[in-house]
Amino acid sequence: VRCGFPEVIYCPGKSTGEIVQIFRKLYETGVNILATRAEEPVYQAVRDSEICPREDLTYDPRGRTITLMQDHYDSLHGDISVVTAGTADVPVGREALATCLAMGQNAELIADVGVAGIHRLLSRLERIRKSNVVIVAAGMEGALASVVAGLVDVPVIGVPTSVGYGSNFGGLSALLTMLNSCANGVSVVNIDNGFSAGYTASLINRNFKRSDE
Amino acid sequence: VRCGFPEVIYCPGKSTGEIVQIFRKLYETGVNILATRAEEPVYQAVRDSEICPREDLTYDPRGRTITLMQDHYDSLHGDISVVTAGTADVPVGREALATCLAMGQNAELIADVGVAGIHRLLSRLERIRKSNVVIVAAGMEGALASVVAGLVDVPVIGVPTSVGYGSNFGGLSALLTMLNSCANGVSVVNIDNGFSAGYTASLINRNFKRSDE
Amino acid sequence: VRCGFPEVIYCPGKSTGEIVQIFRKLYETGVNILATRAEEPVYQAVRDSEICPREDLTYDPRGRTITLMQDHYDSLHGDISVVTAGTADVPVGREALATCLAMGQNAELIADVGVAGIHRLLSRLERIRKSNVVIVAAGMEGALASVVAGLVDVPVIGVPTSVGYGSNFGGLSALLTMLNSCANGVSVVNIDNGFSAGYTASLINRNFKRSDE
Amino acid sequence: VRCGFPEVIYCPGKSTGEIVQIFRKLYETGVNILATRAEEPVYQAVRDSEICPREDLTYDPRGRTITLMQDHYDSLHGDISVVTAGTADVPVGREALATCLAMGQNAELIADVGVAGIHRLLSRLERIRKSNVVIVAAGMEGALASVVAGLVDVPVIGVPTSVGYGSNFGGLSALLTMLNSCANGVSVVNIDNGFSAGYTASLINRNFKRSDE
Amino acid sequence: VRCGFPEVIYCPGKSTGEIVQIFRKLYETGVNILATRAEEPVYQAVRDSEICPREDLTYDPRGRTITLMQDHYDSLHGDISVVTAGTADVPVGREALATCLAMGQNAELIADVGVAGIHRLLSRLERIRKSNVVIVAAGMEGALASVVAGLVDVPVIGVPTSVGYGSNFGGLSALLTMLNSCANGVSVVNIDNGFSAGYTASLINRNFKRSDE
Amino acid sequence: VRCGFPEVIYCPGKSTGEIVQIFRKLYETGVNILATRAEEPVYQAVRDSEICPREDLTYDPRGRTITLMQDHYDSLHGDISVVTAGTADVPVGREALATCLAMGQNAELIADVGVAGIHRLLSRLERIRKSNVVIVAAGMEGALASVVAGLVDVPVIGVPTSVGYGSNFGGLSALLTMLNSCANGVSVVNIDNGFSAGYTASLINRNFKRSDE
Amino acid sequence: VRCGFPEVIYCPGKSTGEIVQIFRKLYETGVNILATRAEEPVYQAVRDSEICPREDLTYDPRGRTITLMQDHYDSLHGDISVVTAGTADVPVGREALATCLAMGQNAELIADVGVAGIHRLLSRLERIRKSNVVIVAAGMEGALASVVAGLVDVPVIGVPTSVGYGSNFGGLSALLTMLNSCANGVSVVNIDNGFSAGYTASLINRNFKRSDE
Amino acid sequence: VRCGFPEVIYCPGKSTGEIVQIFRKLYETGVNILATRAEEPVYQAVRDSEICPREDLTYDPRGRTITLMQDHYDSLHGDISVVTAGTADVPVGREALATCLAMGQNAELIADVGVAGIHRLLSRLERIRKSNVVIVAAGMEGALASVVAGLVDVPVIGVPTSVGYGSNFGGLSALLTMLNSCANGVSVVNIDNGFSAGYTASLINRNFKRSDE
Ligand SMILES: Nc1ncnc2c1ncn2[C@@H]1O[C@H](COP(=O)(O)O)[C@@H](O)[C@H]1O
Ligand SMILES: Nc1ncnc2c1ncn2[C@@H]1O[C@H](COP(=O)(O)O)[C@@H](O)[C@H]1O
Ligand SMILES: Nc1ncnc2c1ncn2[C@@H]1O[C@H](COP(=O)(O)O)[C@@H](O)[C@H]1O
Ligand SMILES: Nc1ncnc2c1ncn2[C@@H]1O[C@H](COP(=O)(O)O)[C@@H](O)[C@H]1O
Ligand SMILES: [Mg+2]
Ligand SMILES: [Mg+2]
Ligand SMILES: [Mg+2]
Ligand SMILES: [Mg+2]
Ligand SMILES: [Mg+2]
Ligand SMILES: [Mg+2]
Ligand SMILES: [Mg+2]
Ligand SMILES: [Mg+2]
Repeated sequence: VRCGFPEVIYCPGKSTGEIVQIFRKLYETGVNILATRAEEPVYQAVRDSEICPREDLTYDPRGRTITLMQDHYDSLHGDISVVTAGTADVPVGREALATCLAMGQNAELIADVGVAGIHRLLSRLERIRKSNVVIVAAGMEGALASVVAGLVDVPVIGVPTSVGYGSNFGGLSALLTMLNSCANGVSVVNIDNGFSAGYTASLINRNFKRSDE
Repeated sequence: VRCGFPEVIYCPGKSTGEIVQIFRKLYETGVNILATRAEEPVYQAVRDSEICPREDLTYDPRGRTITLMQDHYDSLHGDISVVTAGTADVPVGREALATCLAMGQNAELIADVGVAGIHRLLSRLERIRKSNVVIVAAGMEGALASVVAGLVDVPVIGVPTSVGYGSNFGGLSALLTMLNSCANGVSVVNIDNGFSAGYTASLINRNFKRSDE
Repeated sequence: VRCGFPEVIYCPGKSTGEIVQIFRKLYETGVNILATRAEEPVYQAVRDSEICPREDLTYDPRGRTITLMQDHYDSLHGDISVVTAGTADVPVGREALATCLAMGQNAELIADVGVAGIHRLLSRLERIRKSNVVIVAAGMEGALASVVAGLVDVPVIGVPTSVGYGSNFGGLSALLTMLNSCANGVSVVNIDNGFSAGYTASLINRNFKRSDE
Repeated sequence: VRCGFPEVIYCPGKSTGEIVQIFRKLYETGVNILATRAEEPVYQAVRDSEICPREDLTYDPRGRTITLMQDHYDSLHGDISVVTAGTADVPVGREALATCLAMGQNAELIADVGVAGIHRLLSRLERIRKSNVVIVAAGMEGALASVVAGLVDVPVIGVPTSVGYGSNFGGLSALLTMLNSCANGVSVVNIDNGFSAGYTASLINRNFKRSDE
Repeated sequence: VRCGFPEVIYCPGKSTGEIVQIFRKLYETGVNILATRAEEPVYQAVRDSEICPREDLTYDPRGRTITLMQDHYDSLHGDISVVTAGTADVPVGREALATCLAMGQNAELIADVGVAGIHRLLSRLERIRKSNVVIVAAGMEGALASVVAGLVDVPVIGVPTSVGYGSNFGGLSALLTMLNSCANGVSVVNIDNGFSAGYTASLINRNFKRSDE
Repeated sequence: VRCGFPEVIYCPGKSTGEIVQIFRKLYETGVNILATRAEEPVYQAVRDSEICPREDLTYDPRGRTITLMQDHYDSLHGDISVVTAGTADVPVGREALATCLAMGQNAELIADVGVAGIHRLLSRLERIRKSNVVIVAAGMEGALASVVAGLVDVPVIGVPTSVGYGSNFGGLSALLTMLNSCANGVSVVNIDNGFSAGYTASLINRNFKRSDE
Repeated sequence: VRCGFPEVIYCPGKSTGEIVQIFRKLYETGVNILATRAEEPVYQAVRDSEICPREDLTYDPRGRTITLMQDHYDSLHGDISVVTAGTADVPVGREALATCLAMGQNAELIADVGVAGIHRLLSRLERIRKSNVVIVAAGMEGALASVVAGLVDVPVIGVPTSVGYGSNFGGLSALLTMLNSCANGVSVVNIDNGFSAGYTASLINRNFKRSDE
Repeated sequence: VRCGFPEVIYCPGKSTGEIVQIFRKLYETGVNILATRAEEPVYQAVRDSEICPREDLTYDPRGRTITLMQDHYDSLHGDISVVTAGTADVPVGREALATCLAMGQNAELIADVGVAGIHRLLSRLERIRKSNVVIVAAGMEGALASVVAGLVDVPVIGVPTSVGYGSNFGGLSALLTMLNSCANGVSVVNIDNGFSAGYTASLINRNFKRSDE
């Protein structure tokens, strides 16, 4: 186990029993544990297994993450903004958020600032600009990543979401949009992969020291 | 010929001689004539053929259109904004513009207001909001259509352009973006088809009377 | 809230309880409310919640829309035709229709006029030509949009539907057909997006005054 | 060599010399010869090689076919209509036509009856209905095949053409349209493959005897 | 109703009650009726509704077709072979077969002659060569259409089936194979569309008179 | 350098001068050298550079390979058949052949046995069945790989070629066909990659000892 | 039945009763029998049918294969390594393994050596290098096939798996990766097709005799 | 101009004269200037225009970049590794490198460490691990990004390149591979977009301070 990195369990395809077992085994190593795509009954099983003190365990039903914090290491400074476009993008954003927290970073969710109402974004801009990295989760046309990148001077991690229908093609539309961003400083992770966005953002933030500090 | 509609010549695949012939034949019917995708030598051949008074003939080398205005009918009121994102989107925007003009509409090009620098767009917003219809030509990620539609109360016609490279796939990226617009009021025409955007916008504008008038 | 625009609730992904809550909150603002993709039990819950007089509330089980009309503003003149090809395209057409009505427009559904029997379309043509805008909802090969656009002088909004199988690819076939229309004046919205078609058509119609009036 | 079938030379990838050689060799067998995708210089080389009496050799520069008729077998009755949508679809239509003729069938080209002006098609309908098979060559949205199939009682062979631009994707749009035809009786050959359409239509026509005869 | 054509009901999306109603209504017109994609309970409901004498009604559980024969018109001569590759292609083949029968044609199913064991096909060849048209239903790589077309002198209608997995992409693989057939005389209908293949084959066969007769 | 493996130069993107240099350098190591996609002038430059005795150097203009044989190691037994469908598939087949030879294997090209005339294949079957591995290069619908695999008991390596047009999509059609082969024992390499097929076949053959030996 | 080849039953689409029947019929022929994609109840039904001695029957619940071994023929020498990347690729790997065993080959599964932790692969390398053929089953990006092929001198059969999400597109991502392998000696079978990989590997191994032996 | 950011000129679509003009104008602002996709004659024209001292101007013919350094600001610490797979990926890597340098970062190119020979990568690993960010440019299957990310603890920026042929589809293969990376910490930019990778890497590095420092 590399120091400061949580162990991560991707739940789909694993039985509840298997997941509880993995939690038990990892708990002994003393690291933070993050389980993603975890339905509520999985959380209940982990909680009721009394592996660890209940207060160390948290469940986020919208982002579907279970977190077991054992180790609270610190990033140097600053934080990560997780910006989401529509309501339906929030679960992906929250998965990213939980990942950042499990990696010991400060992070905040800034929801519902999609480009159809640009002034909502502009009114949150001062807050966003304080961050060292910005994660943007957006479905449908995914335009938010470009707009945000045009407004900040730090790296933007785009997470296309599969939110939408018709010619959205399961997130392909937002994926292509973000890859073709006309604003500089955007890199992209896989569709709906909030975890990957949070992980990369954390790798950046934990060593980030703004030059004006 | 339906009254008030120009005759349109799509030049690719036609020889210069054929195009001159079509101009000659259409000129006699008294309608406006628009030739699209016309290279400069084609224009020169039409001009030198002395079919019509030179001052009735105009050529736009960037939009590659030849226009021969014979009939100046009027729209009811108002005008059309043709908004373009990057420098490379201007030719498509200018094709749309020439089409609007050939259809007797007022129209104006508002260039270089891509979403990477949102304030350039916001500074032109008052002007754009005066229009009855807005055409948005944008390549790369094509996000501009959504942003504009979120800021105006009138129909927006999106024209994805093939500007870009890599996973742009010849304009597919911008096309999908515009079809998946999270802002309401956007409808879309084919990639690079400034003519079609201008035509549809003109159909709307010529009968448009803002309810506050 | 912009004057004259309904509030719209896209139901998928929201619980019945949440939808009732949104109705309650929006009702107080006095605007029209439109809920799309609403299954019957959702309608029943809204109705039984007694938020508003029952007679202000209507449900269309085929188009799956709930409408709550509070505000009856008028368009200038004229109306919108919503033309559908096959039986299976009717739900999309009805979603468009309900959207037009919720936006205070006159609109009429003209069903079952697909191109396989062109005379059915021709026999309704006089009616369609009276409209200021025409919405065409068609699946399978989506050819109806081109045929209609060749027969009218007003804007046509194409809505490809996902009706079909095999190489239909969830509506892609009809989408490409409509984008490549050889008739002028067609612009396109996303697959199955009757709402978007109705919204755009209403933006056009509410300010439309035919030049011959 | 099966009796009554021409030998066919697909010219791309063969040198002029090779093509002349193949003509010479096939001429001796006494069958009809058809060369497709043949540029003008290829024809001139064949003609100047004096393989056969010049009057037996014909070249169609638009369809790019060379035909050498030696054997004039007859179909039972009737003929084949080759119907094309726009000007740019004519070459594909003519390749189909030449193939039918080389196979000893009666055939006629009915051009420029695309669906954007449905009345042009309706005015030719009586003629088309006389045929035993109808070939429809159309690009852009390819809707003509459905419309024709809805109007006739005989087999329709659709040939999508690569005519178009943008989201046409090299004929894919018209191909999908034709495969998804809502009218019955349409089967489809590969994009731009006029030869294949003509071949299949001839297989049908040479044995066709209308039941009302 | 055009004489000699059955009425066809495509069952998906219709309730059992609706289908029974349509049967009742069509029965009075005296034509043959074919219902496709009909599950067994639908058949039972039609049968139990006592619309017609039970012996006029047949159900094919593998092809999922209900047929009600009232009118037994004849084709001129000959018959149609419906050739299938693997076991899983049989349902599509049987849908084609039922369509041919409902259209008054003679037709026979020749199953399990896929190209992986070419000798099974060769051993049935004499039988197949007696037909006026051959329908080939094949999934996976769909190669059977080419092989058959190389062995017969009559039109071959290819029906790609969605049988397969992985890079089969729901039948796309077989569809492309058949469209690219290197053997002449193949035309193609939509994936899994046995009905369309049977319909087209019947249009050909009912007027077919082999020149050697 | 692993013993018994040639060094391979992929020519595209390298200047003639660079290729000569690489030949010179590799020659000293004593291994066999294979240059693929080599145009004739490249061969002439290598030959005229007098790096090696001319008789050790061979050029295949159809397969576009230059071979410099220095080391003649042996396979255990047997040989490789390289089977091609149409004339246009021969270059890919010859690239595979040259690769086998440069790797010290016995190999033979069996051309023009496409599935449109299955008897040509059957007449060569005895020869093909003597081989330890069979390479099949085929474009258009690529069906030959399945048919061959159904007739032999040894591994078949499929090389889809980009030969074709229309919905061939640069070889995608043949690629999907081969991946979906209904006959067992087929594995596939990239489109047009004769080299890769030859390399893999050689890896198999050099250690192959038929169990009946 | 060709000597030494098992009979294979692909279970999807067959009823439990049908599968038991096929087992019974094949059992009498004395060959090995392999059923793939077999759910547990199918196995139980076969077992309880008492067709054969229970100890000849094995079920692998993870690979979902039933094997009935009657005939234990031998390969010449050596064995096959089945290498898998992540946990979710194991079922595909086990299907390949069971196929090899049913074909009388020696084979071993080497699991969980994905490229994200290259040292796990390197630590198993000595073992893998002892094999005559290597099967690599990997999803997500599928990179393992290239890495393994770079480390061994024998043929590598790649099986892309559909494991993943987002832009994985049901295994397309891994399929393209493997087809584009920069390491030589990789050939590819269809997505998730462990059976096909095992079959081809067995064809190679049963006749393989390493040259250093 | 934001302090510390170069001005960037994307050359395609601009005439040499226009590019010289932009250089002249930007030079006055005192910032660094980077021109990408610049052919040699463009560089010569800029150099000969004597806008600036020749020694401030550098041209990289392989990466096709012109750099004019006026301002040498510093990153906090550390550097960026630009890792490339094959020879053909070097130009994209060098574009990334030049971008990093123009943004005032330390950066080094580590070429030719593709996964087909994993030991070349492992032998450079110590060097790579010293960097704060790693850019990986790879075509064909693009597997290198995953392998590198598995070996380092810092962010990896993947740049898929369009190097390859066949089912590479212009870089799509490598793009999907990188998006589906099974190793954590990879984010991706558009195909061939070395500039974007260098820009994002520089945004990260300029504020990066390793926690162990
Ligand atoms: N730039 C353009 N893009 C697309 N379609 C066009 C364009 N210009 C003209 N057209 C269409 O092509 C028709 C004229 O084509 P043609 O008769 O071949 O010159 C017009 O009526 C339009 O429908
Ligand atoms: N225009 C065409 N389009 C497609 N296939 C053709 C065409 N012309 C000829 N062919 C096919 O190519 C064969 C002749 O090819 P080749 O022997 O290479 O000249 C014919 O028998 C047809 O199967
Ligand atoms: N025709 C070919 N098709 C595909 N890959 C090839 C071909 N020829 C050579 N290669 C690959 O390219 C490598 C040589 O590339 P290079 O070092 O750039 O000349 C070989 O080792 C093969 O892996
Ligand atoms: N190689 C490149 N690839 C992609 N985008 C680039 C590249 N070079 C420059 N750009 C973008 O293009 C802008 C400059 O474009 P332009 O103003 O048209 O010269 C830069 O700010 C970047 O956003
Ligand atoms: Mg920025
Ligand atoms: Mg708006
Ligand atoms: Mg019109
Ligand atoms: Mg018909
Ligand atoms: Mg034939
Ligand atoms: Mg075999
Ligand atoms: Mg190797
Ligand atoms: Mg890492």
